Amino acid sequence: MFIDLLIDAIKEKDNPTVVGLDPKLDFIPQFIKEKAFKEHGVNLKGAAQAIIEFNKGLIDALCDIVPAVKPQLAYYEMYGIEGLMAFEQTVKYAKEKGMIVIADGKRNDIGTTAESYSAGFLGKTLISEDVLQPVFDADALTVNPYLGVDGIKPFIDDCKRYQKGIFVLVKTSNKSSGQLQDILTDKGKSIYEIVAELVEEWGKSLRGKYGYSSVGAVVGATYPNQAKILRKAMKHAYILVPGYGAQGGTARDVAHSFDGEGLGAIVNASRSIMCAYMSDNWKDQYSVDNYADASRAEAIRMRDDINAAIKT
Amino acid sequence: MFIDLLIDAIKEKDNPTVVGLDPKLDFIPQFIKEKAFKEHGVNLKGAAQAIIEFNKGLIDALCDIVPAVKPQLAYYEMYGIEGLMAFEQTVKYAKEKGMIVIADGKRNDIGTTAESYSAGFLGKTLISEDVLQPVFDADALTVNPYLGVDGIKPFIDDCKRYQKGIFVLVKTSNKSSGQLQDILTDKGKSIYEIVAELVEEWGKSLRGKYGYSSVGAVVGATYPNQAKILRKAMKHAYILVPGYGAQGGTARDVAHSFDGEGLGAIVNASRSIMCAYMSDNWKDQYSVDNYADASRAEAIRMRDDINAAIKT
Repeated sequence: MFIDLLIDAIKEKDNPTVVGLDPKLDFIPQFIKEKAFKEHGVNLKGAAQAIIEFNKGLIDALCDIVPAVKPQLAYYEMYGIEGLMAFEQTVKYAKEKGMIVIADGKRNDIGTTAESYSAGFLGKTLISEDVLQPVFDADALTVNPYLGVDGIKPFIDDCKRYQKGIFVLVKTSNKSSGQLQDILTDKGKSIYEIVAELVEEWGKSLRGKYGYSSVGAVVGATYPNQAKILRKAMKHAYILVPGYGAQGGTARDVAHSFDGEGLGAIVNASRSIMCAYMSDNWKDQYSVDNYADASRAEAIRMRDDINAAIKT
Repeated sequence: MFIDLLIDAIKEKDNPTVVGLDPKLDFIPQFIKEKAFKEHGVNLKGAAQAIIEFNKGLIDALCDIVPAVKPQLAYYEMYGIEGLMAFEQTVKYAKEKGMIVIADGKRNDIGTTAESYSAGFLGKTLISEDVLQPVFDADALTVNPYLGVDGIKPFIDDCKRYQKGIFVLVKTSNKSSGQLQDILTDKGKSIYEIVAELVEEWGKSLRGKYGYSSVGAVVGATYPNQAKILRKAMKHAYILVPGYGAQGGTARDVAHSFDGEGLGAIVNASRSIMCAYMSDNWKDQYSVDNYADASRAEAIRMRDDINAAIKT
């Protein structure tokens, strides 16, 4: 079961964090880009090759201490087919290195179409009667709940069939997330609380040995008060927490998403890890050639920061 | 401006419809699949080649009578990189044949990430200081509003820069759409009405010569009563109407999304057009070899059906 594999990995590495692989070209060291552009041209292919090189360096430096990576599909789709090949290779490489891969695609559609998204990212695609083929084959996918259960059930079915997971957007980390998510209903609840109830319901049949479900939730670190409410409202949902670091969430903020045992949440950081080599914290200790070591140092700092906050 | 180009095309062809290109393998004639599998193998590449062949046949048969196509990204992503190459070729081919392309991806994310989605589907991707490259380059994209304005604004910026459009999910056609969208707020409005107000607001700066905005809305044909309310609530939003045909919406149902001049909406049909050759209506008149002619006949029937309903 996905959620058990995730929690086992978090426990084994004593690290409740996931590194977002959102490889904007600005984040990638100049020497990597120069090499890729020289070999493949200053075009989508060159960009995609730089991304693969950068991601592999990060994965190599992080795979023994960080349980999971979260590639954000937008940052691959923006480089077209070549970018998606980089996504595919990143997923494969991270899995080979023993990491869990959460594809951040926020996919959503009506039932029959959601089945296709699910086949592409979590399940398998039927080519003919006797050929059923995995495609991008991530371990989990983020999904958007705006269409209700029809659009979620196909993913849940694949979670059961193939030991996969989903994280449903509940309360997102961005400034305007309240525009819809915080609206109060005539029953006195907010929309994010109603989505939280749905997440609990949707995950009932996918609970594992730790009591958590393979149907998780996304709750931003930037909203600690809502996180407190949501931790209680979704007792069985593992919470994927974006917004730590560059977006402003602190270890104290993210602590609200954890339970008393130090489980219940996995905190994402993207930019602060990927760009550690140019940060004030690390740029004096690590040259750009050692960007991956700087990322490792920042990943360790983040792990210890969060572990300290959740153990008090 | 996208919306003016769309309305001009609808007027020129006297046809307020869009054909959904959702090429499930089940929809594709056996002879096309056999040829593709023989040439490329019973694998993702074979499937993708069958899709391209099928789509091109449909586009050739429809391009002089139908103003737009709407490829659904899920049905390409499920075939991986090869499937996305089929998507890219489909977009390109349809545009070459003078059709407007609405990419149905229902994309959504926080601001900086939405920028990347927008670059990939509508705008251009910055590779280096002096290389800015279009990627999938569709004319419009469907987007999900759950994250509020932060996640929408980057698309709007590209709509301005590159004459593109978006269609925001307001009330979707599926059975469980009401689970979130119909919830009543403490102010007595439903969530879909609140999203409708946002769509009006978001589209203010993108209104064209007909008074409609390049920020449109998705409202399912399966909810005619809500469509009546929404047509009035979003006076400047062009409505993309899924759910006609196979999903159960009738021409009378979709008529509610049009204004008194016969403008204001574009109705999508996917399966009923793509699978016309196997339908009770057309299978006696067209053999499978002439699948594209059957699709053309059904597209004409649909056009006339809807035009008759909106002109009464």
